[in-house]
Amino acid sequence: MGGDHGPRCVVPAAADALRRNPDLHLLLVGLRQPLLDEVERHALPADRVTLHFCTETIEADDSPASMLRGKRDASMRVALELLRDGAADGCLSAGNTGALMVLSRSLLGMLEGVERPAIMAALPVAGKPCHVLDLGANVDCSARQLFEFALMGSVAVSEMYGLPSPRIGLLNIGHELNKGGQQVREVSELLRQCASLNYIGHVEGDGLFRDQADVVVCDGFVGNVVLKASEGLAVYLQQEIRQALANSLLLRCMAPLLRRALRPVTQRHDPTAYNGASLLGLPKVVVKSHGAAGEQAFAAAIDYTVRACQAGLPQRIAGRVAQVDRSL
Amino acid sequence: MGGDHGPRCVVPAAADALRRNPDLHLLLVGLRQPLLDEVERHALPADRVTLHFCTETIEADDSPASMLRGKRDASMRVALELLRDGAADGCLSAGNTGALMVLSRSLLGMLEGVERPAIMAALPVAGKPCHVLDLGANVDCSARQLFEFALMGSVAVSEMYGLPSPRIGLLNIGHELNKGGQQVREVSELLRQCASLNYIGHVEGDGLFRDQADVVVCDGFVGNVVLKASEGLAVYLQQEIRQALANSLLLRCMAPLLRRALRPVTQRHDPTAYNGASLLGLPKVVVKSHGAAGEQAFAAAIDYTVRACQAGLPQRIAGRVAQVDRSL
Repeated sequence: MGGDHGPRCVVPAAADALRRNPDLHLLLVGLRQPLLDEVERHALPADRVTLHFCTETIEADDSPASMLRGKRDASMRVALELLRDGAADGCLSAGNTGALMVLSRSLLGMLEGVERPAIMAALPVAGKPCHVLDLGANVDCSARQLFEFALMGSVAVSEMYGLPSPRIGLLNIGHELNKGGQQVREVSELLRQCASLNYIGHVEGDGLFRDQADVVVCDGFVGNVVLKASEGLAVYLQQEIRQALANSLLLRCMAPLLRRALRPVTQRHDPTAYNGASLLGLPKVVVKSHGAAGEQAFAAAIDYTVRACQAGLPQRIAGRVAQVDRSL
Repeated sequence: MGGDHGPRCVVPAAADALRRNPDLHLLLVGLRQPLLDEVERHALPADRVTLHFCTETIEADDSPASMLRGKRDASMRVALELLRDGAADGCLSAGNTGALMVLSRSLLGMLEGVERPAIMAALPVAGKPCHVLDLGANVDCSARQLFEFALMGSVAVSEMYGLPSPRIGLLNIGHELNKGGQQVREVSELLRQCASLNYIGHVEGDGLFRDQADVVVCDGFVGNVVLKASEGLAVYLQQEIRQALANSLLLRCMAPLLRRALRPVTQRHDPTAYNGASLLGLPKVVVKSHGAAGEQAFAAAIDYTVRACQAGLPQRIAGRVAQVDRSL
């Protein structure tokens, strides 16, 4: 059980999710004592929770080799094995993203017709998420892979959020057709030819925050950098504004009023509510929580995982990929 | 004379820059009538301004072929020819970035030892700029080219801002050594081996806003997307906050007080003051202004161009590249 906070955050979040989802059953996988302590403290219902103890955890600086061949009893591996063997419908982890990706591929394999998995998450824009993929699973991507990301993103957003025909954009450095490299042009052509996709064309960096598309496709290097830069900028600007307001005595006195006025903004952009990134392209539901997620954010990621399982996401994606492959 | 506003913005900005820089002489290149009208309106000093009239301008959707072979009398081309022929020390344009890049390379050639030009501009972070390159001149870059960008950025920041040993970072999707693709690892190795560079290692997206490095190197696709996404997010958050505050009657009444409290923040991040992006790697000073720049922002870009000329930037870069090549 990984992430920055481990069972101290995951277990109360589990208690919360169990209260809200009456049909939910949870398998918790982690080191014995810390897990037992927390489960006892939060009085989880014994009939709806199964505990699996393991002796190891994967750390941020573990090498891919040690993830794959060492640490046979790491909580992340055990959880994925339980998923593979049918003991669970989905797997959620706040641990090392690279490890989750590598272990998922190795233990679960890939969906037929999908070359590479992709990580998809939402940028909260005016209460209306803009889903971006890939966010770091693949540093370099072929045109075909980016095309698959678009298909998978379209299915995921359509099934999980009830959008019948999500607008699909391709991240690029200009909206004109002749902009970007050879690869962007190739993907663009594939996307334009796919009648079942609502492809709207190129989206520039600022377009991510202008409600231009519901799903934006890019390679994992660009996606990861943009996601982290956006998080970094938002945090930085908040600090700057807070500091400036703190310098004024009158505004310090008015802080409660200001907070109330700004509440709609903070609520609409609360990263807590948007926690949960899908690893798409696998034959089972695997979800990554932000490593720094607190209790509320982790509970949101559990809800997200439940929604992905209920939507039967992997099967939906497999069906759509097969359909498109037949029509090509 | 391009950009969104043309002579109506450029000419008053020129008048302002001439007042502030007593040794400055300007060559203004543009369509006759609009240019003459503005020059007359703003009473530019005739002895410090030379006008060059042309009959064409390059548009945002012109193809590279038409830029290079058509439009022989476009203002951008004429300005670069004047630069090439020694009539000017530097060239500043608010026009089409791609055209400026293509025409500059074609008319001026490259500095010896530099394979490709790069566009560098500053992200304003807490009044301390973080310079990023490349911002869109090169979609794909080799390790050697990224290494050259680091050298050129280091020289530019050191010469123009008086930083003796700028901290150089490489944009990546993880700060660990084993993160990123093959190419990132190759560049990292080249940078580590270069004793004359103050290479600090990998910088993630959020590191751009954490004062980790003075210069951050990446390929033009990533740089362009991150720059535009940051601009888009900043604009978007401003709108959201403004809207939320406008919904409160009391806060509307307190707007002047709020504005005063927030003035240090807006001043430290004023994009106007940071207008001006260098095209590095050319044998002459070429600077790009934001296309949407207003009068004040364009005046800032003129000052930036003057500083680059005074620093003898191309010669400094050439010297450093030759020195490093000898030591390899």
